[in-house]
Amino acid sequence: VLNMKAFVAGGSGYGGGELLRLLAGHPRVDEIASSSRTYEGKRISAVHPNLSGIVESEFKAHDPSHADADIVFLALPHGQSMEYAPQILECGMKVIDFSADYRMGDARLYGKHYGKHKNPELLEDAVYGLPELFRDDIRKSRLIANPGCYATAALLALKPLSSISKSLDFNHVIVDAKSGTSGAGAKPSQFLHHSEVFDNIRTYKETGHRHEPEIDHILDCFIKDASVSFTPTLMPVVRGIICNCHIFGDTDIETLRAAYSNDYRKEPFIRVVDAACTKNVLYSNYCDIQPAYDAGKGRAVIVSAIDNLVKGAAGQAMQNMNLLMGYPEDEGLKTPPYHP
Amino acid sequence: VLNMKAFVAGGSGYGGGELLRLLAGHPRVDEIASSSRTYEGKRISAVHPNLSGIVESEFKAHDPSHADADIVFLALPHGQSMEYAPQILECGMKVIDFSADYRMGDARLYGKHYGKHKNPELLEDAVYGLPELFRDDIRKSRLIANPGCYATAALLALKPLSSISKSLDFNHVIVDAKSGTSGAGAKPSQFLHHSEVFDNIRTYKETGHRHEPEIDHILDCFIKDASVSFTPTLMPVVRGIICNCHIFGDTDIETLRAAYSNDYRKEPFIRVVDAACTKNVLYSNYCDIQPAYDAGKGRAVIVSAIDNLVKGAAGQAMQNMNLLMGYPEDEGLKTPPYHP
Amino acid sequence: VLNMKAFVAGGSGYGGGELLRLLAGHPRVDEIASSSRTYEGKRISAVHPNLSGIVESEFKAHDPSHADADIVFLALPHGQSMEYAPQILECGMKVIDFSADYRMGDARLYGKHYGKHKNPELLEDAVYGLPELFRDDIRKSRLIANPGCYATAALLALKPLSSISKSLDFNHVIVDAKSGTSGAGAKPSQFLHHSEVFDNIRTYKETGHRHEPEIDHILDCFIKDASVSFTPTLMPVVRGIICNCHIFGDTDIETLRAAYSNDYRKEPFIRVVDAACTKNVLYSNYCDIQPAYDAGKGRAVIVSAIDNLVKGAAGQAMQNMNLLMGYPEDEGLKTPPYHP
Amino acid sequence: VLNMKAFVAGGSGYGGGELLRLLAGHPRVDEIASSSRTYEGKRISAVHPNLSGIVESEFKAHDPSHADADIVFLALPHGQSMEYAPQILECGMKVIDFSADYRMGDARLYGKHYGKHKNPELLEDAVYGLPELFRDDIRKSRLIANPGCYATAALLALKPLSSISKSLDFNHVIVDAKSGTSGAGAKPSQFLHHSEVFDNIRTYKETGHRHEPEIDHILDCFIKDASVSFTPTLMPVVRGIICNCHIFGDTDIETLRAAYSNDYRKEPFIRVVDAACTKNVLYSNYCDIQPAYDAGKGRAVIVSAIDNLVKGAAGQAMQNMNLLMGYPEDEGLKTPPYHP
Repeated sequence: VLNMKAFVAGGSGYGGGELLRLLAGHPRVDEIASSSRTYEGKRISAVHPNLSGIVESEFKAHDPSHADADIVFLALPHGQSMEYAPQILECGMKVIDFSADYRMGDARLYGKHYGKHKNPELLEDAVYGLPELFRDDIRKSRLIANPGCYATAALLALKPLSSISKSLDFNHVIVDAKSGTSGAGAKPSQFLHHSEVFDNIRTYKETGHRHEPEIDHILDCFIKDASVSFTPTLMPVVRGIICNCHIFGDTDIETLRAAYSNDYRKEPFIRVVDAACTKNVLYSNYCDIQPAYDAGKGRAVIVSAIDNLVKGAAGQAMQNMNLLMGYPEDEGLKTPPYHP
Repeated sequence: VLNMKAFVAGGSGYGGGELLRLLAGHPRVDEIASSSRTYEGKRISAVHPNLSGIVESEFKAHDPSHADADIVFLALPHGQSMEYAPQILECGMKVIDFSADYRMGDARLYGKHYGKHKNPELLEDAVYGLPELFRDDIRKSRLIANPGCYATAALLALKPLSSISKSLDFNHVIVDAKSGTSGAGAKPSQFLHHSEVFDNIRTYKETGHRHEPEIDHILDCFIKDASVSFTPTLMPVVRGIICNCHIFGDTDIETLRAAYSNDYRKEPFIRVVDAACTKNVLYSNYCDIQPAYDAGKGRAVIVSAIDNLVKGAAGQAMQNMNLLMGYPEDEGLKTPPYHP
Repeated sequence: VLNMKAFVAGGSGYGGGELLRLLAGHPRVDEIASSSRTYEGKRISAVHPNLSGIVESEFKAHDPSHADADIVFLALPHGQSMEYAPQILECGMKVIDFSADYRMGDARLYGKHYGKHKNPELLEDAVYGLPELFRDDIRKSRLIANPGCYATAALLALKPLSSISKSLDFNHVIVDAKSGTSGAGAKPSQFLHHSEVFDNIRTYKETGHRHEPEIDHILDCFIKDASVSFTPTLMPVVRGIICNCHIFGDTDIETLRAAYSNDYRKEPFIRVVDAACTKNVLYSNYCDIQPAYDAGKGRAVIVSAIDNLVKGAAGQAMQNMNLLMGYPEDEGLKTPPYHP
Repeated sequence: VLNMKAFVAGGSGYGGGELLRLLAGHPRVDEIASSSRTYEGKRISAVHPNLSGIVESEFKAHDPSHADADIVFLALPHGQSMEYAPQILECGMKVIDFSADYRMGDARLYGKHYGKHKNPELLEDAVYGLPELFRDDIRKSRLIANPGCYATAALLALKPLSSISKSLDFNHVIVDAKSGTSGAGAKPSQFLHHSEVFDNIRTYKETGHRHEPEIDHILDCFIKDASVSFTPTLMPVVRGIICNCHIFGDTDIETLRAAYSNDYRKEPFIRVVDAACTKNVLYSNYCDIQPAYDAGKGRAVIVSAIDNLVKGAAGQAMQNMNLLMGYPEDEGLKTPPYHP
């Protein structure tokens, strides 16, 4: 197993910055380079001052097509990744894409929610980079669509129920999610202005969030015609996602627990717990999952918690990188979460 | 219309303290007294230092039975209120009770969730103190069961749907609620320790919260056999509740909006808004309500927001007091919320 | 005493918005109008959604010169107020200015810190609007320079020491201040982006903050040649300022307490307390002050706390308005602070 | 260099828990055991759920005297450590003590601030565990007094000024420090109750904090008769300390910067930065230091930032452990801080 070179396109954002931080601590990564449209030529640690004394290079020019790397991470907005992916792949480099551009597997579905796809022929090459669901495919791929943060938390909570899906009403699943502000990115706006966010709980995109079709699309591989209704709420914190998944049906708590234990027994980053909260997973690649069941009303509640920038973005990307490179899956991802 | 005297039993807690603050600003309240088991003889402003220079008296002995007042507010834990209510009523004073003791209207239901009731004969005298739903009954009552904070937010969000309940699946309503910590009270505990709460999003009581039967019980007056499934999440803020209410069914956004406008057009404390968030209602008696509808999946999402200590407790109690006394309903409750 | 009309130029900012909120609740204010460059023609409650159902008018065009009002509040940035003040005064309206334009009383000092003054002849007409220090002058004035938020907290903490200034080293006063983000305004920026501010304590402007010469300039009226060294720290909250004022010298705690009691005994908005914190004053016009003394090292520590948008801006402006109009000084400012 | 066994007495607190987390990731630590008076027999991960799946053992009985370890960490309150240290040392194990029991080097000084010392003869054996100041002594010691969190931040900020102390007034140093709540521990109290702390800035121990004599005592080794006046303020965050150190004197910014660069050029955990804030050091062992100078008023401001549980407690303890064991000083402490 050889060491590697990594390139992060769009390293000035929060997802890209978190990935640079993780790569800096990965024992197998020999070289790290990063590009940024806005900060080209500027020191990386001027944008991410947490990395002062740790990452000392400058941002390169934006275009990642000519990167000299084994893997190129595209931490770019939707629509931009598909501009660069084809050429990078042609150069023989592998791609892990943070955007939605290769998640849908279907140009029509992509078009409906994001716009016209520029290289739909690549969609069938792309693998949805959720290792717990598609590990073997990921290993063999050259183009990984790194999942959305909400989709990660929802899918990890819902997929194990496929074994008992017949006793549950999977046509009316509610995923009520809560997230901190870092998922909305580093660009200043009134919506993310501290004085507006602090001490405020704000439901937004009550209907129509674009992670909803992503969840449905992937879940369909495991539970035919499952339909998830998704609503996010913005929390006055920076990191962390909690999904409360509500599903009516006739089961019991032992059956639920068994479904999760069976599926996730050997997973390095899933913990089935008694009380899920964001604090126990922040800054780590863990997803904590807690099943509950109300026998009186016949409702299952599955709570999942992740750090949106780690398991929901950069950590998951590195987990995918480890799979692509044949490294131990948890290499560079072993730092435990914190208390308090 | 005469001025009045008020007595707050249990004034050292957060709900009681907020009520003392409101009473101090009410133009019709001539005398305020308060009792506390723990702080008897201590200055009220030592417990609520916000009131230094505003409320200068001391807490009296706990027993409110011999209060010299027109209205006695019982800001006491469940089980304690029913110890004192009968004697206070016998003395001809009216009672507004913050606990669940007189909310259920049914001793069996109370017994199932709280324990044996000591004076079930009073239950049929008690009126559930949600003015928007029971205004006329409240005016004529002598014993008001002030609603639970979550129940207030959920019921105000759901009740207007009674006019279109046939097109909605009211047997499978999900109320996914988020609350700050003040609703859990002033008593220190590990669960409410700052280092544990800060920067943490924590679902708790996934099933079985005691406000669920309270919501079902009251909603049943308007929508026969409605069944709500309730899950709360603790937010790292002090005040504020958001309820996301999810209901499947066949309707449209105009019909939804009309239902709310019709019901609440003249309500002084309900605002039907485009974007509900806690910040816009904090420290006020407002409940903001925002309806949304996903035509694709046939799901209504109703978001309601209140300040749990004002509309969810002390403000609502004062609104009830105004009704009982024949004062303008918003007297003492006109301070607008803040921005930012 | 007649009722009045008020005009708020720059009502879309946080200071102006807070003033609109306060004016809406003032029993003597019959008409409120407001202008905004950015939001002209837009509903006020679209910018300040807390005021939905309370303030229903639209923002007028920016230029306040032709306002039809008794008092024009200029909630404008430094440099803009002096563009409008002369004409407003000529029209016979009074001016209360939130900016620094008329605080310095000296065009040279203003020029050094802010730029060339456009109407220096007005400087000697202007009164520094800190009622506790200049109440009688304010009553007779037509142009009030509403103090800076930090300057308010620092001056209220330091001025009473003038009676014992000979025993203190007033050439080396340290004012170490902490503030929430609302003082920096409503304009989005990276510095105020929620993900950057949350969970972060950040000292800024370690030296050279422009409130330092303002404090020195005003303090000089009471303590000749006093010199204050000022450093602010940004706190991850929205509202509230704490000033820790450190002064070496030979005194004792009784003498300190007496100085504050003597000066502030009759002040409606100053409370001399045992433990100052922002929470006890937030959303109110109070300034809480706590003196301490270390006899071993000969150091006095005076802690003062205010809400930067109320006593530090809009509340103080309304207090000044009350003085100008001959209303009771606390009219419209009686809402007590909150707990918790 | 051999691998080692570690024992943490008092592992249920925040400092001890953070150390367990760090030890779990240290490549040279083969065995970890921990004791707790309250949680004896309970799983460590029940108290620190962040460690679920990472640390799976139970807390042992409280008494650490018979630990089977190379180093015993005493994460105990003041007064308890000195009960156990002598016997542990007699057994040939080394001790790193989190309490103040061995910091003072002088039984009289200890007695004045903490109470009678039980084994004053050990005081001269003890080394103050601030590696940047006493690295060589630490290497040779068997009893390390791990510094207080505030003292760490203040001493690292002040010590480099010893080279220019003659031009500064070191008799009147002000250290105005701000800290999150985790430094006050895991025990619930009203002072640390979330609803009381949130959105609150609260100065406390304005004078007389016990870290003041600790700072003076250690600083005296470098700057004879230096006298620091210390005031802390509680911030509504969990982790992080900022010290603003104010010193009058005649110097310039270049001289200041040179003092820090010279002293700290080779330090693995000190970064001299342009803008210090807690966020850039949280969860890491870094201390960021930013010097500033006001030439007009002749005041130096040195800002230092640490994570109180890492560089202020457990991380520093592990840095000391590395020195004692001859490991690379940053072993197990390389995880970079986070953004955002």
